[in-house]
Amino acid sequence: MSEMAPWITYRPELKVLDCTIRDGGLINNHLFTDDFVRAVYQTCLTAGIDYMEVGYKNSSRLFPKGEYGPWRHCDEEDLNRLFGDHDEEKTGLKLTAMADAGKSDWKEKLVPRDESPLAMIRVAFYAYQVSEAVEMIARAAELGYETSANLMAVSNISETEVDTVLEAIKPTPAGAMVIVDSFGHLYREQIDILYRKYAEAMADTGKYIGIHAHNNRQLAFANTIEAIILGANLADATMGGLGRGAGNCPMELLLGFLRNPKFKLRPVVQLLQEHVEPMRETEAWGALLPYNITGHMNRHPRAAIKFLASDDKANFVKFFDEIVSDA
Amino acid sequence: MSEMAPWITYRPELKVLDCTIRDGGLINNHLFTDDFVRAVYQTCLTAGIDYMEVGYKNSSRLFPKGEYGPWRHCDEEDLNRLFGDHDEEKTGLKLTAMADAGKSDWKEKLVPRDESPLAMIRVAFYAYQVSEAVEMIARAAELGYETSANLMAVSNISETEVDTVLEAIKPTPAGAMVIVDSFGHLYREQIDILYRKYAEAMADTGKYIGIHAHNNRQLAFANTIEAIILGANLADATMGGLGRGAGNCPMELLLGFLRNPKFKLRPVVQLLQEHVEPMRETEAWGALLPYNITGHMNRHPRAAIKFLASDDKANFVKFFDEIVSDA
Repeated sequence: MSEMAPWITYRPELKVLDCTIRDGGLINNHLFTDDFVRAVYQTCLTAGIDYMEVGYKNSSRLFPKGEYGPWRHCDEEDLNRLFGDHDEEKTGLKLTAMADAGKSDWKEKLVPRDESPLAMIRVAFYAYQVSEAVEMIARAAELGYETSANLMAVSNISETEVDTVLEAIKPTPAGAMVIVDSFGHLYREQIDILYRKYAEAMADTGKYIGIHAHNNRQLAFANTIEAIILGANLADATMGGLGRGAGNCPMELLLGFLRNPKFKLRPVVQLLQEHVEPMRETEAWGALLPYNITGHMNRHPRAAIKFLASDDKANFVKFFDEIVSDA
Repeated sequence: MSEMAPWITYRPELKVLDCTIRDGGLINNHLFTDDFVRAVYQTCLTAGIDYMEVGYKNSSRLFPKGEYGPWRHCDEEDLNRLFGDHDEEKTGLKLTAMADAGKSDWKEKLVPRDESPLAMIRVAFYAYQVSEAVEMIARAAELGYETSANLMAVSNISETEVDTVLEAIKPTPAGAMVIVDSFGHLYREQIDILYRKYAEAMADTGKYIGIHAHNNRQLAFANTIEAIILGANLADATMGGLGRGAGNCPMELLLGFLRNPKFKLRPVVQLLQEHVEPMRETEAWGALLPYNITGHMNRHPRAAIKFLASDDKANFVKFFDEIVSDA
């Protein structure tokens, strides 16, 4: 039958990456309690998640300690404190950190993989930073890490710029090239175009394609499954969709979609109940109207974040007019 | 260019239907204030919306007056009280009501179109009620109304049943056949399959296809635009996604997607600010975890609604276990 449901099978190659601590940490300067980080880690283990991104490996000069929690820097001593006894082979879970071009002291701070709990370094960069990103990927790979290239804010650059970045990343040892919809601006048709472009550029390199979506227009989950259907083999999500602004693709929805029986939804439900829902008392995230509007206008959510923290936060019309007039 | 953005053009045939009062009213037994109904009406006018569904034309024997507000019944006197001076030609807005098979005294209550502010009667039915639906459509058309056939809970029946319904609707005067994802269970691949099935069955009849999505898994907007891309020419949405349980496709997202300049987002933003956000103090709707779970399991949301109204409402794991064990 040609209409045989394709969604009842699965690709074992498809890996799920939890970035609750790394990306979610932008909501609170990574000032998570150790208890919360451990709870997310335990959930990743029991839910069958493949990668857990535990933070940024960014500079403490730019992000002073105290003001920013340890998962903004991922110093090896903090990694060892929480994950020193992590057994990658036995658990099937790999730990990752992200290094931002322009914000990371990667030359000094990256240690050989066999001296770190980390298995993978993901390099995030804007198009104009691609040369540093290429160096970062080369260095991390040389130290033994899996690597990925995460071109941010792709909705904000031209196709020629995208092509140039892809050409630069192609010869690097990066294992993955990730579609990153930083502004939550992409529709599925654009995901399709980008997926095909990324996949074509990386054909015959062995690189796989990843997807990292934001939820400004309630499309993070839809766009993530779209990329998966097309062939993306690395899907990012966060518990409860936790993340700055509108947040991310919710893990609980993603695991509900996946058909690989190794993924378990119940531990995620438990984490949400015990740790994530209580955070809503002090932190707000989700596809609120101001994020709908910045997503619609292809803008960084910072204007919406600022608006929602202001005394004017109920004055949606004022915000709409400001964003429209500023276009 | 083959990659020329298709989303910057539009189909003038595509009509938007606001069902805030009709479907949103299931959240509060249609006990809306006249002020709120008028505000939605004014918003539909200024936002360029094509149809406003003002309620159900259902029986006051089943839904006693007082316990249920006037928009559960849409008596002609209530319609005239609020919309007696509505000018369809001048405003470009048509008013609709929905009649449920098995719940409507349609034989007695439908008046000729030229005696009513209504322009369209949408007939909602489960597959087993298709014979009454066919009679209802015939009667409404005979009285001069536009009509549509809204087969509910399509995720819960077999393809053979769907085919049988489509065969029965095909010879009726229904102008539209609507894909209704009552349980918020469908993925885009299933929307594709259903769209093609509906469109093929209705080919050469002049009928168009509609889409009515629920947001249990944050897919209402994504599935609505998917159906639009495929060719659906009637898209349902509600202001702020207002609706029972997880709610509906949010009008503010839908209008952001559409490229027809007649649609204006600002009036919707204003309505949300002044009327819909304040309702969140007494009513809760949205893609909360219990609705994710019922959507995932292809269940009516009533179990999740009951759970969220109970003392156990924070015990997500208990709810998850109950739904899974009951499958």
